Amino acid sequence: MKLNLSSMLDELGRVTDEPGRLTRTFLSPAMERAVKLVGCWLQDAGMDVKVDPVGNVIGFRKSPKPGAKTLILGSHLDTVRDAGRFDGPLGVLLPIVALYELNSRGIALPFNIEIVGFSEEEGVRFASAYLGSEGYTGRLKAGTLALRDAAGISVRDAIRQFSDQPLPKPRYRRRDVLGYVEVHIEQGPVLERENLAVGVVSAIAGQSRFKLTWTGKAGHAGTTPMALRRDAFAGAAEFALAAEQLARRTAGLVATVGSLTVAPGAANVIPGQVVHTLDVRHAQDRVRRAALLKLGRLTAQIAKKRGLKVAWQRTQDNGATDCSPGLTAQLARSVQAVQGRSLSLVSGAGHDGVVMSALAPIAMLFVRCRDGLSHHPDEYASPKDLRVALKVMIDFLEKLAGRSG
Amino acid sequence: MKLNLSSMLDELGRVTDEPGRLTRTFLSPAMERAVKLVGCWLQDAGMDVKVDPVGNVIGFRKSPKPGAKTLILGSHLDTVRDAGRFDGPLGVLLPIVALYELNSRGIALPFNIEIVGFSEEEGVRFASAYLGSEGYTGRLKAGTLALRDAAGISVRDAIRQFSDQPLPKPRYRRRDVLGYVEVHIEQGPVLERENLAVGVVSAIAGQSRFKLTWTGKAGHAGTTPMALRRDAFAGAAEFALAAEQLARRTAGLVATVGSLTVAPGAANVIPGQVVHTLDVRHAQDRVRRAALLKLGRLTAQIAKKRGLKVAWQRTQDNGATDCSPGLTAQLARSVQAVQGRSLSLVSGAGHDGVVMSALAPIAMLFVRCRDGLSHHPDEYASPKDLRVALKVMIDFLEKLAGRSG
Repeated sequence: MKLNLSSMLDELGRVTDEPGRLTRTFLSPAMERAVKLVGCWLQDAGMDVKVDPVGNVIGFRKSPKPGAKTLILGSHLDTVRDAGRFDGPLGVLLPIVALYELNSRGIALPFNIEIVGFSEEEGVRFASAYLGSEGYTGRLKAGTLALRDAAGISVRDAIRQFSDQPLPKPRYRRRDVLGYVEVHIEQGPVLERENLAVGVVSAIAGQSRFKLTWTGKAGHAGTTPMALRRDAFAGAAEFALAAEQLARRTAGLVATVGSLTVAPGAANVIPGQVVHTLDVRHAQDRVRRAALLKLGRLTAQIAKKRGLKVAWQRTQDNGATDCSPGLTAQLARSVQAVQGRSLSLVSGAGHDGVVMSALAPIAMLFVRCRDGLSHHPDEYASPKDLRVALKVMIDFLEKLAGRSG
Repeated sequence: MKLNLSSMLDELGRVTDEPGRLTRTFLSPAMERAVKLVGCWLQDAGMDVKVDPVGNVIGFRKSPKPGAKTLILGSHLDTVRDAGRFDGPLGVLLPIVALYELNSRGIALPFNIEIVGFSEEEGVRFASAYLGSEGYTGRLKAGTLALRDAAGISVRDAIRQFSDQPLPKPRYRRRDVLGYVEVHIEQGPVLERENLAVGVVSAIAGQSRFKLTWTGKAGHAGTTPMALRRDAFAGAAEFALAAEQLARRTAGLVATVGSLTVAPGAANVIPGQVVHTLDVRHAQDRVRRAALLKLGRLTAQIAKKRGLKVAWQRTQDNGATDCSPGLTAQLARSVQAVQGRSLSLVSGAGHDGVVMSALAPIAMLFVRCRDGLSHHPDEYASPKDLRVALKVMIDFLEKLAGRSG
């Protein structure tokens, strides 16, 4: 059976933990089903398949050339809640189809190919992203392993429940790896504006994520005068609006409060505690750090003024990541060959490539998505654009084979 | 045996449906035991005791004066789940002790005294409050009687199981009643702040509750420029702060956003939808309605500015209840006599007096409670403050006797 990328994306898009909408989180039942499905396709492309202890599905195809290095291709299989079907899976399924096509044309590559479907990149379950690639590269820290989900289960316990194997050691040393290449939808408006199907990424913006906890005092909503309140939600709301304003005033900065819970959470009780996330990103680490300093001072001022306590917990901190100039130039040559013109752009979103850059030179191919929309069921990349991206990947692998051969 | 108010509150506080915590709901086994216990104390105060078909326990002491009117004193005997022991019982037991003391001093009152322990005020079992006082005043509506509890039992069936008597007719016409006086813990911080044991209530605030739904567009937190966002949470936060500001600027107004949920609710996704409650209360209906109009216009402005949609759903609406100026002035004179200073405050919480105001002029005495805390096992009013409240009640009855005599 010939593999068809659009059909595969559709099929994988129906594997969900929540009926009626697409949601797959770290080590969830739907993720296990997704890993099985992707494992079958990896086998169709002639690969040996294994699942590592943190839930990454790994396909490996050894080169006939002795002592060959390995090219790693991949992206993530988890999703946000109520997600689209391209963000992540595209970067796993497209290389599978590319390899399948090369196989069917009898082309043997002079390097090993590894295709990875990472088990976690979105940070939904533990409010910490990249669990899959951190596990893959042996970089899961004790602090990350201690994080707990809404049910109180820690990352460490979730992994133990999934596998009785110890945490994975890094599979490769840097010198054994040719590079890591990731295909992803752009999740932004640039390619659409430039009327291009694909482009190459020059750098990935740095990002910081935090969990903020505001503690005030719960009280009766009818009997506590406004002046005597220590309303944790009012403090959080004031902070969220100030963060929004700072981001609006600072070119290229984005700041988001995406998740928030109120306790006790009854209509007639003043909120005593609010926990929320904060996500801050910028292409320059200097600008992001200056913004975080300002926001830190701001929370202290708001807390003091309102008689609240506020605690920051850093859940993620990634500096801006430069893509490899050499590997990116090769990818750009293939884009030029297929599309006639290449465009270089910055990624505002983080990607598994951020973590993988510690192991290997990285390159990224962006695919146009309609209205720049992502993290939404209407997320869409056209079959035509997907064919362009697939041609670019095949051309890239062939050219790399020519250089390495 | 001399009656001791603190000991009685302790003893009644151990009569519960749930081992280890205090919970008594409408017509429950613990309520039957509570009614028996209170009935004994009513008899100790020289009263004739009956239990009406909706479970209210009623003590009556006829005046020797022919054609005397009746003064009704009371509060409720049911509780919230995991309750304190003062909210409700204080207003039943304190008048019993006051009457007992007047008896022991040989004082005969020139008006009949009726002390009522209402069987329901908290709305726990049927999510509808005031069943006791509505039954007592003959105001139980068909819609209320049809409400069902978690086990599927209707109010009507619960009453039938309790008593084979028909629903009670109103015991009094308005002209036969001197008034209704209720003693209750404040459930708020004002008396504590003012360093006063007791205060009088000028009015019971009207309250409106709503569910607001803000709809924007979910999007990627890293790739969606600030200027292009339609962030539902930012809209809700702006509204909550504006509501807080309006309440702060408007004397006596309280506005609370107590419960809020964010969807999709991930750290890296711009909120697409937010649902939250709004609770608005004021002693004057005119002020509350004007505030709601302003808040309505405000949501429309915020929604327009931010490209959001907003929907209001009303979940509760009760008008304000004024306490009787005459009766309250008499109560305030007794407060002044005992405590040196009287303070008038608005009740932000609802009380049996709301329903009783249909039958009689009402007055309420508030007693300081520690940290303004209520609906919690740590709810506490000191024996010293209780003695002040008791003295006020005795002084009030004596002064009223002097006027009526």
